[in-house]
Amino acid sequence: MTVHLVGAGPGDPELITVRGARLIASADVILHDRLAAPLLALAGPKSQIVDVGKAPGAAPIPQARINEMLVEFGRSHDNVVRLKGGDPFVFARGAEEAEALWSANIDYTIVPGITSAIAAPAAGGVPVTCRGLTRTFTVLSGHEDPEKWSDSYVESLVALDGTIVVMMGAARMARIAARLIGAGADPATPVAAIHAATTPNQIAARATLGVIEPILFDSPCVFVIGAVAAIDLRS
Amino acid sequence: MTVHLVGAGPGDPELITVRGARLIASADVILHDRLAAPLLALAGPKSQIVDVGKAPGAAPIPQARINEMLVEFGRSHDNVVRLKGGDPFVFARGAEEAEALWSANIDYTIVPGITSAIAAPAAGGVPVTCRGLTRTFTVLSGHEDPEKWSDSYVESLVALDGTIVVMMGAARMARIAARLIGAGADPATPVAAIHAATTPNQIAARATLGVIEPILFDSPCVFVIGAVAAIDLRS
Repeated sequence: MTVHLVGAGPGDPELITVRGARLIASADVILHDRLAAPLLALAGPKSQIVDVGKAPGAAPIPQARINEMLVEFGRSHDNVVRLKGGDPFVFARGAEEAEALWSANIDYTIVPGITSAIAAPAAGGVPVTCRGLTRTFTVLSGHEDPEKWSDSYVESLVALDGTIVVMMGAARMARIAARLIGAGADPATPVAAIHAATTPNQIAARATLGVIEPILFDSPCVFVIGAVAAIDLRS
Repeated sequence: MTVHLVGAGPGDPELITVRGARLIASADVILHDRLAAPLLALAGPKSQIVDVGKAPGAAPIPQARINEMLVEFGRSHDNVVRLKGGDPFVFARGAEEAEALWSANIDYTIVPGITSAIAAPAAGGVPVTCRGLTRTFTVLSGHEDPEKWSDSYVESLVALDGTIVVMMGAARMARIAARLIGAGADPATPVAAIHAATTPNQIAARATLGVIEPILFDSPCVFVIGAVAAIDLRS
């Protein structure tokens, strides 16, 4: 009677944690997102597999319904794994799922995953921090409409002068870049884009905030903005 | 003739990646940090173990010497693992080590680790992001003297109004809190501190920016500042 909220990591099935792999192998039920599907190879033969993921463009299962399903399975099964791409607490609504389980008095654990906010840049050769070059990195979600950002918010992002990582920004990155430039960011600021990081379909490329069109790849794509994006440590 | 820069994760040995565990098991040589020591249980019986970690207060091995050692072992051994606490690219000087290997023409790979920037808050029940509550999280290192921060930098941190995570801030957190308040942060802003996250010695507690003394734990300690720090999702 425990639900494990497990981060699947950035894509490469070997980048899940040892604990996550163990829990998948012993799960009675696995509710998974689309991006976490490659990890299902670790599931036992008797595991029930439930796809609660959203294909791009398809009608998604509402989060409230996913929360209900977690509670229902948590009541009816011993070992339930909720397998989420990346990390459960990084723009993944894991907090809402944990809250739903907490309210229903169902035991749960949080098993962190490698977030693509850090691992996607790394897979493209970009360290999100580099001594002498950056003192912070800030992670934000491109799901939010950048037209709704306040000027002071965008100006703070720019003034911080650290690394900015944009997750899930494929559809809005051009407008995000325009807003950053409008708030004073140098159009020559390096940007790296990493599509499908750590998978066989990975594409990584560099550009600048001012000329970003060549790297507006399809989802899933992580963008990393700042001085570190000029580094290329791929061996 | 490959050096693998492997993130050991936040402390719990089960929170290393499957790839990291596999590489440790087959390594000829392992150069490890102090915090990564629990992972050495995974090493094979013939592995050479080299401690390059810094105990608090002890004279550290200079980073330049660690870089040289990585190059030397990379030339003389087939499978070298450089095992680092957390993630190699999050305030861990992994970029410098990769750069040294690149310059010496030694093959290397980067294996990400679960960063305590996200996993330590999670272990204390705090999600670094929460829909409707935060739109960003910013990670910074407490190794830097907050007295040297420019006013505009601190003001930007505050104006961003997102989650702030301070890593390695045990020694300087009181002064960091004072600078944030001086730049306009509400003294009632929630703060959570997590010492020795995910280990048997973990301590987690809550306070506010204005009354932070009760949670100034010893190193290793991660502080998370902002509205999310009032959440407690521990089950």
